[in-house]
Amino acid sequence: MSGPQHLPFSKPGDKHDVEEGSLFTPRFDADGLIACVTLNAQDGAVLMVAYMNAESLRLTLETGVAHYWSRSRQSLWRKGDTSGQVQKVTEIRTDCDQDVLLMKVEPGGDGGACHTGRKTCFYRRLVKDAEGIRLVKDEL
Amino acid sequence: MSGPQHLPFSKPGDKHDVEEGSLFTPRFDADGLIACVTLNAQDGAVLMVAYMNAESLRLTLETGVAHYWSRSRQSLWRKGDTSGQVQKVTEIRTDCDQDVLLMKVEPGGDGGACHTGRKTCFYRRLVKDAEGIRLVKDEL
Repeated sequence: MSGPQHLPFSKPGDKHDVEEGSLFTPRFDADGLIACVTLNAQDGAVLMVAYMNAESLRLTLETGVAHYWSRSRQSLWRKGDTSGQVQKVTEIRTDCDQDVLLMKVEPGGDGGACHTGRKTCFYRRLVKDAEGIRLVKDEL
Repeated sequence: MSGPQHLPFSKPGDKHDVEEGSLFTPRFDADGLIACVTLNAQDGAVLMVAYMNAESLRLTLETGVAHYWSRSRQSLWRKGDTSGQVQKVTEIRTDCDQDVLLMKVEPGGDGGACHTGRKTCFYRRLVKDAEGIRLVKDEL
């Protein structure tokens, strides 16, 4: 249940501490990343899932504005820098083993979160038909 | 934007096909896994985040019951087999680049999803105080 330290965060302790304790010890994966599920604070809609490294998590906590780590660009990414969709953070939660974050935000700019122009990245639903599985667009 | 094929799913195409197409081409990571955010179908609460490999995703789609891949046990995991918290799937979505799933479920058994006994894994909120960040329990 333990893992390496990623400053400024403390190293995870034993299973009981991680699950029941009040110490925040985020568990980063082998690439130094933690998954973050981002919700719209107003209606609870799931906007996106992205990753943070220790630096982007630290900046998010310090500034109150969402910072992520772009795996494709391998760089720190302050959401909204180019799109205007800056995310003001209103709440952060973590899960039982502290390897996922759940973050509520107020999206700025046009109120969207997806680079395709939609409000949420989850704009397609899986539908089973005779030919198999296909995707149907129906924004949340 | 492409990646290897993970049968029975098709290999991802180009960026436009992945983002705008109706073909479901889930993008598994280097470990052959895709992240899944699981919501309670009734109230939309985020219950858990877990991972699926191609086999667990195939079984989930075929049976309508959530199957995951346990990274800690390195094994296929039909949620609820030991806890009774079987998850009946009512909807699955995917995101713009098809590397995350968003799944709505009806939890069986005691209606919970977390192995600690809580309804959701996200039972702690981050709070900033003079000493830094600490976790406060307040179930959703």
